[in-house]
Formats: sequence, C-alpha cells, structure tokens
Amino acid sequence: MSNPWTLAHRAARMNPSIIREILKVTEKPGILSMAGGLPSSDTFPVEEIKAACAKVLTDNPRESLQYAASEGFAPLREWAAARVNAELGMDVSPDQVLVTSGSQQGLDLVGKILCDQGAPVAVETPTYLGALQAFTPYEPLFHSLASDINGPLPEAIAELPRTAPGTRFMYLLPNFQNPTGRVMPAERRDAVMAAAQAAGVPVVEDNPYGDLWFDEHPGASLSSRWAEGSIYLGSFSKILTPGFRLGYAIAPKALYPKLLQAKQAADLHTPGFNQRVVYEVIKDGFLDRHIPSIRARYKANRDAMAKAIKEHLPAGCEYAEPKGGMFFWIRLPEGLNAIELLSLAVDAGIAFVPGAAFYAANPDPRALRLSFVTLTPDQIEKGVAILGKVLHDALNSTHAIPTP
Amino acid sequence: MSNPWTLAHRAARMNPSIIREILKVTEKPGILSMAGGLPSSDTFPVEEIKAACAKVLTDNPRESLQYAASEGFAPLREWAAARVNAELGMDVSPDQVLVTSGSQQGLDLVGKILCDQGAPVAVETPTYLGALQAFTPYEPLFHSLASDINGPLPEAIAELPRTAPGTRFMYLLPNFQNPTGRVMPAERRDAVMAAAQAAGVPVVEDNPYGDLWFDEHPGASLSSRWAEGSIYLGSFSKILTPGFRLGYAIAPKALYPKLLQAKQAADLHTPGFNQRVVYEVIKDGFLDRHIPSIRARYKANRDAMAKAIKEHLPAGCEYAEPKGGMFFWIRLPEGLNAIELLSLAVDAGIAFVPGAAFYAANPDPRALRLSFVTLTPDQIEKGVAILGKVLHDALNSTHAIPTP
Repeated sequence: MSNPWTLAHRAARMNPSIIREILKVTEKPGILSMAGGLPSSDTFPVEEIKAACAKVLTDNPRESLQYAASEGFAPLREWAAARVNAELGMDVSPDQVLVTSGSQQGLDLVGKILCDQGAPVAVETPTYLGALQAFTPYEPLFHSLASDINGPLPEAIAELPRTAPGTRFMYLLPNFQNPTGRVMPAERRDAVMAAAQAAGVPVVEDNPYGDLWFDEHPGASLSSRWAEGSIYLGSFSKILTPGFRLGYAIAPKALYPKLLQAKQAADLHTPGFNQRVVYEVIKDGFLDRHIPSIRARYKANRDAMAKAIKEHLPAGCEYAEPKGGMFFWIRLPEGLNAIELLSLAVDAGIAFVPGAAFYAANPDPRALRLSFVTLTPDQIEKGVAILGKVLHDALNSTHAIPTP
Repeated sequence: MSNPWTLAHRAARMNPSIIREILKVTEKPGILSMAGGLPSSDTFPVEEIKAACAKVLTDNPRESLQYAASEGFAPLREWAAARVNAELGMDVSPDQVLVTSGSQQGLDLVGKILCDQGAPVAVETPTYLGALQAFTPYEPLFHSLASDINGPLPEAIAELPRTAPGTRFMYLLPNFQNPTGRVMPAERRDAVMAAAQAAGVPVVEDNPYGDLWFDEHPGASLSSRWAEGSIYLGSFSKILTPGFRLGYAIAPKALYPKLLQAKQAADLHTPGFNQRVVYEVIKDGFLDRHIPSIRARYKANRDAMAKAIKEHLPAGCEYAEPKGGMFFWIRLPEGLNAIELLSLAVDAGIAFVPGAAFYAANPDPRALRLSFVTLTPDQIEKGVAILGKVLHDALNSTHAIPTP
C-alpha cells in the first residue's frame, strides 16, 4: 500500500544539517579536522565529574534518579542567577532561570513560543547555523541584519519596523560569535540595545562562548541593558562538558510561564542527575580555577593558528584575529569557492566548514570557518599548512585557466 | 514601555499542566500521594548505576563527555532494536532507532514532523495527558476515539476517513494505559491495526509500561502488525530510572530522516554520558534480572490497593483490576465530582489525579486515577482508607442536601 504518512507543512523546510553531513565525511580516520565546534576534550574535568557522580549517587540517589521539576534543580538555578548577576551586570532572580537540555533546547523553546509562520526573526549576518535550524520548524521569515566587524549595525535595527515589521525578536551572539569569532564592543552593545528598545524589537542573547576571553572580559551582557526585552541563554558545554547537555534560559517574569510549559511538553525536565552532578562540581568555585586553564589553552591554540595562517595562507585572505572563543573566520581571495574546495581539502587530509552554511540568505561562497580548539598547536600548524597548499593550488589552477 | 514580546499563535493553547499544578499541592509534607506517575525509587539500581558511571568515565571519558551523534549511541540503538525484535515481534534494524530525551521527547518530535494546525490526531478516550501537551503546540484537532475496557473500538477507527478526514495518526498506548491501566488483548490489537491500515491512518505506539505485566506478557506490539504505518516509542523511565531521561523512537526508514532532523534542531543529541551509563548497566542482561523484581513489587502493591478499594470505597465505584502498569482508574458514584473532591482529599492527607485531565474533550468528572507504585502497601491501605472516608462523607452530604 502507499505511504500512509503525511508530513507537517513545516517539515518541508527541515533539511539535513550541512555541518552534520560534513562532519560525517571528516570522521574519516587521519583527517585533521578544523570543522567541528567541539571543545578540546583535554579540558573535561573527568576526575571531578567522576567524584561528583559518586557523591550524588551516595548522598541523594533517589532524588537524582527520580522525575524532577521542569524548572530545574533549585541550587543550579540559584547558581546561574548569581553568576550572571556578578559577571554580566544582570539583575535576575533564580525563578527566572529555566534549566534546558543544552542551550540548543533554549533556542527550540524560544522558537516554539515566539515564532509564527511568516513572522520575521532578525539574525546576524552570518549567524549560528544551529539557531537557524532550531527556529526553522516554526516557519519564521529570517531577516539578515547588515553587520560589520563589531556586530550588527544599529541602523539596520532601527529600520526593522519598516524593513521587517512585526519582527518577533533579534537573535544575537555578542561574544566571540559563531561563526565569525567577533565580539561586540561596549559602545556597539549600547547602540544595538538602544535601537532594539526604540524599535520595540526584543532580543534573544546566546552566550556559549562568553567565558572564553583571552585578554579582556567582553563586558556586561546585552540583556543587562534591557532586561524586560531580553531572553538570555547560557551553557555549560564550552566550560565543563557538552556531553551532559546542560544549559539555561533566563527570561523576563512575564514570559517565563510559557517557556516553562514549552519545556514540560518537550521533555518534562532536563536529567536531574546531570544537574546535580554539574552543581556538585561547580558549587565551590571550581569554574574560577578551571576556566582560566581553558582560556590559556585556547589562547595558545589561537596564537598557533594565527601564526600558521600568516605563514601558509595565500595573500588576499581576509580575517581578524579572534579575541576569544573557538573560531577563525576567513574570506578567501576572489575566485575561490569554499564549498567547492572542501572535497579537495578532505582529500588532502583536513576539514573546515564552508561559511555559506551560516547565512539565512545570500551566502558568501568565499567564507570558511576554522576551529582552533579541537586540535593541538602542532596539528594546527600542520592542518593550516595543508589548507594553504590546497588554496595555493586552487589559485594557480584558477589563474592557469583563462576566463572564457 | 509596553511589553515588547508577541507570542506565537500556538502559545495561546499551551497552558499549565493540571497534573503538575496538582503535584505541587501534594508536595506538602505528610501527604500520602497516589497522584503522580512516579516509579518507586526503591527500584532504582543505584549501585549498578554508580559502578557504570565510574566505568564509563574511566574507559571512555572523552567520548562520553564530548558532543555525540544525534541518532544516539550505536550500541544502545542495537540493543533497542534487538529487544523489540525479541520481545515484541518486531523486525527493525538499529538504523531505525533514534535515542530521545525520554519518550516525552519522542512525542514532541512526532508532533513537530506530523502535526499541522487543524489537522486531526486521533487519541484514546481517555489518554495520556503528557501526549496531549506535547502535540498541542503543533495545533492539531484532537479526535477522541470511542473506547471500551479493551481499548479503542475498531469501528471508531474504520470511520475515521469520514469522521476525521486527513487524520495524521492515532496515538495509542496498548499496554496498561495511562490513565486507565487497561491492556489491549491480541484480538483487539489485530482488529485495531487492520482498521488503521484499511483507513490509511498510521499509528504512534507509546509503550512505557509494557514490561510491567504481572501474570502474562501483553503480547506483540501494535507496530509489529503494520511496520510501515507505525512509530514505536520506548522508555527506560519505568524499568531503570526516569532521572536519566532516556527513551527511543523507532520509525519506518522513510520517516526516520525527518525525525532525526527534528531531534538535531531540538537539542543536538541526548546526553552521551547517560546513554553510555545505561548501556553499561543493561548490556549483559541486567534487565532480565531486574524487571521481575519490579513486577513482583508492583503486583504486591496492586493487590494491596485492590484489597483496600474493596474494603474502603463506597458501593457504586466502578473499576477494573489492572493486570500491570501503575494505575487504578476509578469511576465514582453518580453525584460525585473528582475535581471538587481533590481539595477535601488533600486536606484529609491524600492526593489523586482527577480523571478529567486525561480527556481531549468531554471529560468525565466522576473519574480519578490512583497510582499504586509510589507508596508502600501499608501506606496504600492507609491512603485508600482516607479516600474512602472522603467519598463516604461526600456521599452523605450529597444525600443530606435536598436537590433544589
């Protein structure tokens, strides 16, 4: 008999993740991958997590293995509120914190309660691919905000009531953005949030990389500048472990109940065991000792990649040295296409992510993203050298073939 | 300034869970709660989980704490396929298995890829509240299937092309259903699935309680009868621990990629650590030793509740003794209203869930659900005795007040 399933309208827009498909290719043994956004597994505090698992299962076995509150583990919610208040200039209470299954789930829940078919959502140009994927099933109309090296342009935000009337929210990554690595300076934050408030367009602020600064704390959050108009998403993936899938959303009190109901419907609650283990690890200030060691490691990796890029990549590559986070964003010389070059690169033993994946519209075929946190400095030097050879070869063959 | 947030259309239909709100009331210390669907925490294999955590973090610390595949941990997917093939008469391969964050997430993903605003979804009468909550944000039109003690009526299914044309799927719980505790006999399964296939309406089969049979295995799954037209949802919550939030969806190969994309967008993947720990606990046949002990415990509890109900509840209460699972479903004598009685019951020291919560439409005000797995047999006897007193008092006062 014929296929009995009828897909939802929204399913037509849900397509395989280009990044995931690429990652599959790059899982070939021996590939030096600068593609994935995987934190270095050398940074995972294995012994602390092991001890915390044992302690939680000794002290609170029943509570940690039973169903739990959808809001999350109360001490972890208190910790998150205290942390953003102390570090990011915010003024929130624990009852505004919703524990999520990674900040990716925060994006899904936000999409669920705020997106309607055809209603605009404004995003940076480029922006995090996973956010586009999380919002897409709710069928928004993506509006790409014009941007420069400091983030989205305040003028583009001021124009939203005219260019994208009814915009539900702007999705912004102020710190070491994925994919560009850029950080918004304080003046730009002020201007962006003033424009947002004047335009009446609220903000969803995603901050997975904020702790990974190398020389200078990136400053108070966007949310601290307009609390009533901001949802803040935090994550433990880059400072502790992504394998526990633990993040949190902080929402204005008026919005919190709907977010909570969406969470209940989605998975009842985030694993209580994981929440208790992470709280056990971090409750006595562990992160204040641990995060600096991640920063030092990633900074050395950034330096190794900056040096290798200078040495090996052809003239005409455009990039800015990231001041934190995990990524270099490189624009290739004219005539090169990052998507076309990927298979050559993989054949040569390396991988990157073509930048085109990160655009809601009008992708830049010349852009690519390199992660500097998964490999060691030696491997980075080797990998970038190979990339340089691939690019030089491509440029030579481009030059060799006369334009028709 | 005014509220800058505009909610999605679907958010208007998302309302607080009645059960969750009730559970909050019943968390008062000293309440004998027969309300929640919490498995007995005495059944959690704490020592085995503790040892597995240590082993996973010793043998595979990096892999278990790193990002992981959206499909799930391969050995766990193989285990799930082998299990349903051996136990439930199915014939599926591991690449049809998607690991989910509890089977609740399976319901959310199913809703996301299959439900459109106004398109019918057929459900049992009554049905699992959490499924109604998971599907509701996708704005289906719920169609309540007429049912009897053996499950939904095949005639009601045969009529779907006329009564609810374009029904996307039927949501069915064949084993010890939540809330009624009923189990579908083999002949009813045959008739239901034949009617479904004839009507061209596929089935989402939810089976969290199937292992909790007391005297007799409930038989092959619905999905085994029409593989191409079935999604099967399994769970570790009732046989191991709900606190790890671990379940799985098994889908026809044609449907799997969309389900996987929905999963990626929702939370990237279920915690790899949790998947590895559960696999470590169960891989050598642990469940074959463990589940019988849960069955014995719950059967003794069921017996205690059956005895207490006979002894303490007023004549005119209708119920069937459940042959497995976790719940008694009781219909009160005419004139009594379970919602109205709940606050009296809580004042008297016990809690139940009013049955009205479990209906997509036309709730039965006389129904209530009692869980027999959270309390001990002694507590059950005490709790049902208190319920009996509340009901007798209510009947007496009903009789005392002349109808106007």
